[in-house]
Amino acid sequence: MAPQLDSYFKQVDTLAESFIDRLRKAVAIPSISAADEHRPDVVKMGEFLASELRNLGAHVELRPLGKQPHKEHLELPPVVVARYGEDPKKRTILVYGHYDVQPALKEDGWATEPFTLSVDDKGRMYGRGSTDDKGPVLGWLNAIEAHQKAGVDFPVNLLMCFEGMEEYGSEGLDDFINEEAKKFFKDADAVCISDNYWLGTEKPCLTYGLRGCSYYSIEISGPGQDLHSGVFGGTAHEPMTDLVRVMGTLVDTAGNILIPGINDLVAPMTDDEKSLYGGIAFTMDNLYESLGSKTGLFADKERTLMGRWRYPSLSIHGVEGAFSAPGAKTVIPAKVVGKFSIRTVPDMEIEDVDKLVYDHVNKAFAALGSKNNMKVWLQHAGKWWVASPKHWNFTAAGKAVERVWGVKPDLTREGGSIPVTLTFEQATGKNVLLLPMGSSTDAAHSINEKLDKRNYIEGIKLLGAYLHYVAEEPTNEA
Amino acid sequence: MAPQLDSYFKQVDTLAESFIDRLRKAVAIPSISAADEHRPDVVKMGEFLASELRNLGAHVELRPLGKQPHKEHLELPPVVVARYGEDPKKRTILVYGHYDVQPALKEDGWATEPFTLSVDDKGRMYGRGSTDDKGPVLGWLNAIEAHQKAGVDFPVNLLMCFEGMEEYGSEGLDDFINEEAKKFFKDADAVCISDNYWLGTEKPCLTYGLRGCSYYSIEISGPGQDLHSGVFGGTAHEPMTDLVRVMGTLVDTAGNILIPGINDLVAPMTDDEKSLYGGIAFTMDNLYESLGSKTGLFADKERTLMGRWRYPSLSIHGVEGAFSAPGAKTVIPAKVVGKFSIRTVPDMEIEDVDKLVYDHVNKAFAALGSKNNMKVWLQHAGKWWVASPKHWNFTAAGKAVERVWGVKPDLTREGGSIPVTLTFEQATGKNVLLLPMGSSTDAAHSINEKLDKRNYIEGIKLLGAYLHYVAEEPTNEA
Ligand SMILES: [Zn+2]
Ligand SMILES: [Zn+2]
Ligand SMILES: [Zn+2]
Ligand SMILES: [Zn+2]
Repeated sequence: MAPQLDSYFKQVDTLAESFIDRLRKAVAIPSISAADEHRPDVVKMGEFLASELRNLGAHVELRPLGKQPHKEHLELPPVVVARYGEDPKKRTILVYGHYDVQPALKEDGWATEPFTLSVDDKGRMYGRGSTDDKGPVLGWLNAIEAHQKAGVDFPVNLLMCFEGMEEYGSEGLDDFINEEAKKFFKDADAVCISDNYWLGTEKPCLTYGLRGCSYYSIEISGPGQDLHSGVFGGTAHEPMTDLVRVMGTLVDTAGNILIPGINDLVAPMTDDEKSLYGGIAFTMDNLYESLGSKTGLFADKERTLMGRWRYPSLSIHGVEGAFSAPGAKTVIPAKVVGKFSIRTVPDMEIEDVDKLVYDHVNKAFAALGSKNNMKVWLQHAGKWWVASPKHWNFTAAGKAVERVWGVKPDLTREGGSIPVTLTFEQATGKNVLLLPMGSSTDAAHSINEKLDKRNYIEGIKLLGAYLHYVAEEPTNEA
Repeated sequence: MAPQLDSYFKQVDTLAESFIDRLRKAVAIPSISAADEHRPDVVKMGEFLASELRNLGAHVELRPLGKQPHKEHLELPPVVVARYGEDPKKRTILVYGHYDVQPALKEDGWATEPFTLSVDDKGRMYGRGSTDDKGPVLGWLNAIEAHQKAGVDFPVNLLMCFEGMEEYGSEGLDDFINEEAKKFFKDADAVCISDNYWLGTEKPCLTYGLRGCSYYSIEISGPGQDLHSGVFGGTAHEPMTDLVRVMGTLVDTAGNILIPGINDLVAPMTDDEKSLYGGIAFTMDNLYESLGSKTGLFADKERTLMGRWRYPSLSIHGVEGAFSAPGAKTVIPAKVVGKFSIRTVPDMEIEDVDKLVYDHVNKAFAALGSKNNMKVWLQHAGKWWVASPKHWNFTAAGKAVERVWGVKPDLTREGGSIPVTLTFEQATGKNVLLLPMGSSTDAAHSINEKLDKRNYIEGIKLLGAYLHYVAEEPTNEA
């Protein structure tokens, strides 16, 4: 039987202005985790959340994470954990979000003050953190409040985990989640994370996969110090010459990874999977618009989505130690470090990729016959994640989307990584669902970040509706 | 008949402390041409020179060069031109030097205050500008003074041209020299520049050749803005991938330029030239010491000197627009500009090199089949210069070296460019001699710049002796 949601939805509409006001208060706190001097604001934001949650009757704890690694004078902001409801007859859903934000300065090019929520006549609510991730986090609080004011029984026990360091590597969070999986989070039946985006602007989606990322450095060094090319050009091995030639063996213009063996690690495409791509609401024009150019690798939508979601890619990010300023400098850099990363997919194991990369780079450098020195190493790696979209957590969310938005959601994967997803899956052993609120044009991490009023208000309805459907959905473990 | 120089030499020794004191006063003026806020110091240094020259009885003019291009609020420092002697029966020698210096801060790693001349117990005189180029410039003034005090007739008419913008591209100087070639400089019979260094530390040299430099940029662009490799990796052509592959076609690890046709432009080696290299005071250990490593391209001295002096070389300097900081950033840069330069030698014409470079880069990019855009252009070019070391200007200088230092000088070329050399040659049509005062360990442009007391005092003797020999040397136009 479909849940009774009309009075909840109506209450959300009634409270819309007060929910926007709650977001306005949150955006006004510049909780920038990357900036040491804003650490008190990050803490303030955590306390704001805790206070709002307590006012709603939730049990709240502010959990310290200790000192920040490599910055021992800085205390990490607390993880805000909360529980709303303790009915053993109800399912328990664990939700995650983050209350810190990316840096933002008006002079970066913002049209409005980044820490003042500015709503334009099309209902676009501009402000740093509006869509990433304060809107979604407050969505859960707003859903609780609307249930209370509508007098509708809350359908699940809700566990909440809101961190304050997501935009700076989620320092300390993995250990915390692993520790609490069998404590504070032990009752969780499923996990839901709202911290990603629709593929486009019109059609909601549920996300069941993410690529991993293995980030490498190649350092080539020779001379004891930077040299003048007039004096030394033509007499010494130049590290930059070698680096360019080694990096030129990694990937071709068509995006093919040239490291032998890498492509053999990729799980083959099944007919089942292949059939999924055609129906996704995505066009080549969507790609061109977000690229800002027509320089796509593929002519068709299906192959483009596969390129983003289910095939690995290799990007060369830059060179440290070489001349990088405008103008002309006739330097022979003494030590250069090339940076590249591989986006990984099933079934690529991190260690297997490392081995192939090291073997290839060592071989490519040896082939040069240079007297310079070369080192290659992994800077960091995060594994890919794929969940089953047939799990009751996903099917319930699909029904909620259809109820709120009137369409079946696209089942999507993403090209980037959200490492906490895999952490929650592995620590709790439960299914994790990514349920986005914002759209592809929200410009998270860029200037003029926004969240559309429609996505916020309907998104609050969706989070509530999801909890009703997931409370009723028959168990399966697909 | 060899000139009578003993009383002049003796007088230089007598005045040694006062000459060092003159250098101390000059070093104390931080005439840094690259720093706007030091412009008054540059002007002050020019006025110091003018005042010293007037005290010696020279006719002096401070010539304005107008506003600094792209910095219209800044007046360029004046060119100090001077004439000492107007005897029509004597030869007229035009000398050039510069009174501005490179930037220097104690905290860059100087062992002493950079603008305080500090003489250690080995006679090393540390201070910014000591060797580049205040020591040599004052050398000419000191030579005049020692002649006066010794009562020795000055052997030539001396024209002087001292500029204050050499370390910042000699802004405005070319036009000035071209203008004055038939005016203030019209009587010049030969030109002498003291602004370079011995090849080593023990043996003086005369320099008769310089390589040129053609500096290129390759810009590759595609997306409208920087992209996240998670979202776009595997779906779009990446400018950095293309740039690395194009730059990889320019030069190999052994230093061979791979641009077709470039090496065909190089003047063939004659037996005569070949025989010069063996006798040069230079060892592979000299190279390794200055490199700070043993990563030389060649095992022998001769080929190494040829690599520096008479063959072209290609260096890749860096990339603008890509990620260049420490750490890891998963960016796909939207627009990257690779910088490289070619050191040019006889008979490479600038336009011919440009054409070969453009053709090759265009072809290499086209071969990639990329949808990105590519542009290649010349940032700046300076031509190589080679003079005849058999000209009377050089043979006279050779005799002066032998008289002062007791050895025949090495005849050397240099790998870098001193653009004013070619300007003087072309504007005056006269032979130009490079007559260095300092040695290879002087660290011009680096921290702890110094000039050895011995090189300064014997150098003053050499400049005077050179003027005596050049006054008497039979005319030839070899
Ligand atoms: Zn986020
Ligand atoms: Zn974010
Ligand atoms: Zn100089
Ligand atoms: Zn200099």
